[in-house]
Amino acid sequence: MRIVFLGDIFAEPGRTAIKEGLPKLIEEYHPHIVIANGENAAHGAGITYEIALELHSYGIDVITGGNHSFDKKVLWEKFSLLPYLLRPANFPQGAFGKGYVVIEKKDFKVAVLNLQGRVEMQPIDSPFSVGDKIVEELRKTTPYIIVDFHAEATAEKEAIGFYFDGRVSAVVGTHTHVQTADERILPNGTAYITDVGMCGVEDSVIGLDKEVALKRFITGMPWNFEPAKGNAILNFVVIDIEPSGRATQILRGKWKKI
Amino acid sequence: MRIVFLGDIFAEPGRTAIKEGLPKLIEEYHPHIVIANGENAAHGAGITYEIALELHSYGIDVITGGNHSFDKKVLWEKFSLLPYLLRPANFPQGAFGKGYVVIEKKDFKVAVLNLQGRVEMQPIDSPFSVGDKIVEELRKTTPYIIVDFHAEATAEKEAIGFYFDGRVSAVVGTHTHVQTADERILPNGTAYITDVGMCGVEDSVIGLDKEVALKRFITGMPWNFEPAKGNAILNFVVIDIEPSGRATQILRGKWKKI
Amino acid sequence: MRIVFLGDIFAEPGRTAIKEGLPKLIEEYHPHIVIANGENAAHGAGITYEIALELHSYGIDVITGGNHSFDKKVLWEKFSLLPYLLRPANFPQGAFGKGYVVIEKKDFKVAVLNLQGRVEMQPIDSPFSVGDKIVEELRKTTPYIIVDFHAEATAEKEAIGFYFDGRVSAVVGTHTHVQTADERILPNGTAYITDVGMCGVEDSVIGLDKEVALKRFITGMPWNFEPAKGNAILNFVVIDIEPSGRATQILRGKWKKI
Amino acid sequence: MRIVFLGDIFAEPGRTAIKEGLPKLIEEYHPHIVIANGENAAHGAGITYEIALELHSYGIDVITGGNHSFDKKVLWEKFSLLPYLLRPANFPQGAFGKGYVVIEKKDFKVAVLNLQGRVEMQPIDSPFSVGDKIVEELRKTTPYIIVDFHAEATAEKEAIGFYFDGRVSAVVGTHTHVQTADERILPNGTAYITDVGMCGVEDSVIGLDKEVALKRFITGMPWNFEPAKGNAILNFVVIDIEPSGRATQILRGKWKKI
Ligand SMILES: [Fe+2]
Ligand SMILES: [Fe+2]
Ligand SMILES: [Fe+2]
Ligand SMILES: [Fe+2]
Ligand SMILES: [Fe+2]
Ligand SMILES: [Fe+2]
Ligand SMILES: [Fe+2]
Ligand SMILES: [Fe+2]
Repeated sequence: MRIVFLGDIFAEPGRTAIKEGLPKLIEEYHPHIVIANGENAAHGAGITYEIALELHSYGIDVITGGNHSFDKKVLWEKFSLLPYLLRPANFPQGAFGKGYVVIEKKDFKVAVLNLQGRVEMQPIDSPFSVGDKIVEELRKTTPYIIVDFHAEATAEKEAIGFYFDGRVSAVVGTHTHVQTADERILPNGTAYITDVGMCGVEDSVIGLDKEVALKRFITGMPWNFEPAKGNAILNFVVIDIEPSGRATQILRGKWKKI
Repeated sequence: MRIVFLGDIFAEPGRTAIKEGLPKLIEEYHPHIVIANGENAAHGAGITYEIALELHSYGIDVITGGNHSFDKKVLWEKFSLLPYLLRPANFPQGAFGKGYVVIEKKDFKVAVLNLQGRVEMQPIDSPFSVGDKIVEELRKTTPYIIVDFHAEATAEKEAIGFYFDGRVSAVVGTHTHVQTADERILPNGTAYITDVGMCGVEDSVIGLDKEVALKRFITGMPWNFEPAKGNAILNFVVIDIEPSGRATQILRGKWKKI
Repeated sequence: MRIVFLGDIFAEPGRTAIKEGLPKLIEEYHPHIVIANGENAAHGAGITYEIALELHSYGIDVITGGNHSFDKKVLWEKFSLLPYLLRPANFPQGAFGKGYVVIEKKDFKVAVLNLQGRVEMQPIDSPFSVGDKIVEELRKTTPYIIVDFHAEATAEKEAIGFYFDGRVSAVVGTHTHVQTADERILPNGTAYITDVGMCGVEDSVIGLDKEVALKRFITGMPWNFEPAKGNAILNFVVIDIEPSGRATQILRGKWKKI
Repeated sequence: MRIVFLGDIFAEPGRTAIKEGLPKLIEEYHPHIVIANGENAAHGAGITYEIALELHSYGIDVITGGNHSFDKKVLWEKFSLLPYLLRPANFPQGAFGKGYVVIEKKDFKVAVLNLQGRVEMQPIDSPFSVGDKIVEELRKTTPYIIVDFHAEATAEKEAIGFYFDGRVSAVVGTHTHVQTADERILPNGTAYITDVGMCGVEDSVIGLDKEVALKRFITGMPWNFEPAKGNAILNFVVIDIEPSGRATQILRGKWKKI
């Protein structure tokens, strides 16, 4: 079973690159399921119901989220309407939406679990204890479990990788918007990468216009963020998983329209 | 020479309490100069040119700021137009506005210096090194120097107090919105209080509607902040200063319309 | 029923002031139970088994903790041996020690619950959801419930106050080491103060030698912290509670050997 | 002119891998100068005078630092004795040691500048304004300027990259201990990578024993960190620079003893 996982889709350039590039990736890699993080899909901050539909129509089977999942308040009441739209599962009880889903596609039952880190991020429930319970539950349903761990600190990401090693098929990091070169199969069979990187304009500061970002750092003033313009790059990983749930390969990739 | 210093004015209830209460305080304490922190004057976040004029018209001689000073972008270009409107002096070069002022009133020349902390706050220039230079400069002009230190951590606030002890007349803390009971004259003659407290609705979470604040803490979702409604309390200190610049007394007070 | 609650006992000077001053406070206020936060009792960082015994021998019935509770590793295995020694209850499962206790004294059954904040502090379980469950359980046993909320941000502290208002007798804040002047009875009968302040040397930076603290702030280098020397001040509150569990009075106090 | 730059050397396994692997890298790439970050060389936290000598003897020409530079206080007084030992230049005045150096080797004059980020790190001086002044000064001496930017947030790292683009030969990120896959030549000729990754044991949590790291995350208690044992991996980049100072190539690499 093969997964393609794409990192944080950033604003209109990210969505356009998905529209143009995802068909090529599907053609090349023939994944059984495509997952992408959508927390920055709406102008860099959050996602709307309509944009979720749009991304789904491009071939994304499950859309994960992160610290920006709730930025667009217009989505809140509709968050649960789309079965394939997730936000981190360790948001406390009372938060809109859901944090995991089991989808069936091409004879495969695949679980996707979204978790968020807490180091240098907002205080929510523990990704370890919340994740532990959900993973043990999901394992009764399917051996194919993919975790999007949306977090800042590399230590917390690696720790989550080892924590779930052998219990899930893959732990794929998101949030930093920069792809890391540490993809590997952990000792007990879980595919791991600290961060898959974003789907956004590369000549930017994590997807944002670099001039504005620089002005913010230099003056300390909250200049309005603006997504960078141009052709976006797609940062992704391809993961192969045995029927046992064990990953056999994780491959890092980038795609950009030429 | 006598100063009245009022803490963070929060939204419309805070401004109304200033309008109604400041004349009473002036009547009671006969200050030579009135200083107030205005970073939350505009709906809890920032301040506008018009609101600065309004507060000035109520009898506030100098309006200081803090981490919310730049929240209202409509103010930016006009920030320097009002001589009595400050933002922390240790924002980096390139930031709009200014961080200190010397005003003359009733035969007294008084310097007001606004600084901001960095512990658990945004990274700006050092309040120690920036403040040091400005204080030494101001001391050539007047012995009456009042510092508004806008900061979160009590350790940083006490450290700034000791750092300027004997060099300025007063270090008054702002930002936490809760008045502290540690007002005193430091060993070398500087009046000090960790936080003067806010001018806002007391039955609230730092000035904000408490139901919304609770929902944010409980669900982890970014519900829209809303200022609390009702009569605001004025939190203030009264400071007496000798011609040498040495403080002789700091008195903590609260005022509320009955 | 009357409680005396003393803030963070800081190092040897804090313990000595407890030894000398607590008898005076007991003589003056005749409390039925004495609670104190001990997270800084051992040289400013943590507490040991022996120091807990020592503080207990001075008349402290329950010792609460905070982010420094685990600083002295020599205590860990013995943490549960002392029924009256607490650490925040919202540390995750697997942490040593316990977070609440019900003690019986002078015909009163009093519950003490220790919780810790998460804003600008380490990521642990939610003080809201963990606290909620424990409080509801404790209410079956006694109407007298005292919460030590050890936290940094005033917003989180006020939110916890309102969250438990009417369900516990008192929410007393600790951790900032500076007493606040906002003690009051909340609308539904809970006594509240944002921070009770420390039991430590006042001429210091939160209990630490001020010269060292200044050097750390100015140079950015990790100079060794050293507790300040001298006579400590005791910061405390006295709380009166009706048989219904409702607080009728909260009184702020300071004591220092002359 | 060719540079080899190695990331944070972590504890004894990192130093051993340098000893064994650096000769191979030198043999393979024939660099004119070798730079490595040594902030974790001493048992994972800091560096000593002796370890700096040791690393220098293995062929490292310049040793940079970061937030752990001052962990070993035994080094402080000797920090300035070794011309090739740096700590971030934007530590405030009064900090021991120095932040940049110009070395001459094989007919090349190369400047190395060490800077540290502030987002989610300790508050020090601005890497932008401090770096700006030093870079402009260094450019009078040599076109070959290499910046080690030791920082956490990808946004701040990319911003520094663009800020110095065209003014220095390379901006190499350190601190996260995970190599990123975004190495490239920025528009104006500066070689850039968000993080070069560490020289430490890969089967670890950023170099630390993974069992201990997991216990810390799960229990919230400060279990003693312990460096992981085993063969370390060397994470490095090779950078080619024209006489104009412009980078022509940046190549990412890993080396591990088999
Ligand atoms: Fe993102
Ligand atoms: Fe994110
Ligand atoms: Fe503020
Ligand atoms: Fe404020
Ligand atoms: Fe404390
Ligand atoms: Fe504490
Ligand atoms: Fe490091
Ligand atoms: Fe570091």
